[in-house]
Amino acid sequence: MKINKLLVVSPMYEELKTIIEKTIIEKEDLQKDFRFLPEEQMTQEDLAWADAYASFNLKSNFDYSSVKWVHSLGAGVDCFLYKKHWNEEVLLTRTICSFGQRIAEYCLSYLLKDVQLHEQFQELKHQKKWHPIPPQLLNKQKTMVYGTGEIGQTAAKIGMEVYGVSLSGKKKEYFKEVMTVDDHFSQLHEMNYILNTLPLTEKTANFFDGQLFHHLTNAGFINVGRGASVVNDALIHALDSGHVRFAVLDVFNHEPLPDDHPFWNHPQVHITPHISAVTTPEEGASCFVETLKMIEGNRMLHNKVDFKRGY
Amino acid sequence: MKINKLLVVSPMYEELKTIIEKTIIEKEDLQKDFRFLPEEQMTQEDLAWADAYASFNLKSNFDYSSVKWVHSLGAGVDCFLYKKHWNEEVLLTRTICSFGQRIAEYCLSYLLKDVQLHEQFQELKHQKKWHPIPPQLLNKQKTMVYGTGEIGQTAAKIGMEVYGVSLSGKKKEYFKEVMTVDDHFSQLHEMNYILNTLPLTEKTANFFDGQLFHHLTNAGFINVGRGASVVNDALIHALDSGHVRFAVLDVFNHEPLPDDHPFWNHPQVHITPHISAVTTPEEGASCFVETLKMIEGNRMLHNKVDFKRGY
Repeated sequence: MKINKLLVVSPMYEELKTIIEKTIIEKEDLQKDFRFLPEEQMTQEDLAWADAYASFNLKSNFDYSSVKWVHSLGAGVDCFLYKKHWNEEVLLTRTICSFGQRIAEYCLSYLLKDVQLHEQFQELKHQKKWHPIPPQLLNKQKTMVYGTGEIGQTAAKIGMEVYGVSLSGKKKEYFKEVMTVDDHFSQLHEMNYILNTLPLTEKTANFFDGQLFHHLTNAGFINVGRGASVVNDALIHALDSGHVRFAVLDVFNHEPLPDDHPFWNHPQVHITPHISAVTTPEEGASCFVETLKMIEGNRMLHNKVDFKRGY
Repeated sequence: MKINKLLVVSPMYEELKTIIEKTIIEKEDLQKDFRFLPEEQMTQEDLAWADAYASFNLKSNFDYSSVKWVHSLGAGVDCFLYKKHWNEEVLLTRTICSFGQRIAEYCLSYLLKDVQLHEQFQELKHQKKWHPIPPQLLNKQKTMVYGTGEIGQTAAKIGMEVYGVSLSGKKKEYFKEVMTVDDHFSQLHEMNYILNTLPLTEKTANFFDGQLFHHLTNAGFINVGRGASVVNDALIHALDSGHVRFAVLDVFNHEPLPDDHPFWNHPQVHITPHISAVTTPEEGASCFVETLKMIEGNRMLHNKVDFKRGY
């Protein structure tokens, strides 16, 4: 496939322009036409001009039919595919960079905060009380990770007992056991932590519902996948009834999280503003240009999206 | 060496008695006389009776001269050796168990709390503000670990750039570089975190002083070694002048930390009550009995203390 005109539409279009023009094009001698725009300035004419379109999402009411290749600047592609029709002739790729390590460090930080009793010791300091409580070791904790990517591997490396849940249930290194989405309920009551890293598809929408939460016993729940995979009312009920001890949420159905959402005031909910797996301009530019080179060289694409599977 | 009468003096003497009598002696067919006592009940007669003494420390004004072997139930042996005279004919051993992993998880929890901006996001939640700030990755952080044991290894395993400082300066796996105590100042200004894991000896008393702190630029300081290795006034000055951004302290000159100590009220100081490397009764009993068997079998002791070196 020949790609000559590339349209990059992003809130970080200036940083991407600088990196791609100054660093990558000069160094790699890439003879391409680029347009870099913020979302609000993109027109139908820009799209008609472009062979390729790179962005975090699609703008509704625009016609993308002339574009041969769409590249997602984020790891998740639900905004391109979920509840949408995808033209099968258009190649869809996504960004793969340090997301795994980023999400692993995010999750690990909250598991360690919990086992190392940060809040308890902070409160004891406030009261000037010397009250030794020995922290639990991570290798005494059982964690169920939905999605069997790098996060589980990183947690296992520092000694955790990690169980996985995936569509296939296929055995994977570092995971003590991998279950399928259909047979994971039986072990849930033993889990200390539940981590969701699943992409949003029709199969994972509303996946974490009242029935699932009901199997948990005082577990910590961390969501770094997508907000729409969680039934929020069911999560709040699980928190209030002790099935879930605390929740750390980085993703929400509607972002920014609306001012009047009950999560803001819930004492057991930790909120972060979708920062567990950011694409830096450097990594975004680098993955985009690498993908371009692989497409032009007709090489195997490791970041091609299976639009039927939805991720 | 033949050991028949063993005196175990500890606040956890009951747990140790249960584990050693019920589990270890029965299983291993050990024919020994044990006495288990809390510290306040030990008498000179108990000591005169014993071949071996296991405890976290020595009681002053007691005569230990009839004892052939002293076993420290903790990892640190400064309470046996620092500023004390040790009878060279008495064997001194110490507990080695999961301390390395425990201390590593303790330190890592505070490094991750910092890079993952836990306090900032907690404050933003309180204000119901959605303000994305991307966390830094651990592999962008430089950490100087004083003492080149397991802590540095664990930190390196999850991707940190770890520098070490030791007496010998000998190169060690996982450490990017190991410096001696005499030549580490030049790199201090580049360090994001400083971790002290050194034992207390005459060489490490007051080691972290005004001169050392002056080389730091906005670094996080974690002390899991000994309180007496830090000049407290110098640390407070370093916190107030920006050389140290925050301090996490698990050990203090006087424990429990006195009510009127300025650390309690300092906003940038985190206090934990000497819990980063606890000896559990299970691990303490197991290491003690293993050491006994090695002594009786005249085998090499990996946990023998070099009382001249002081650790």
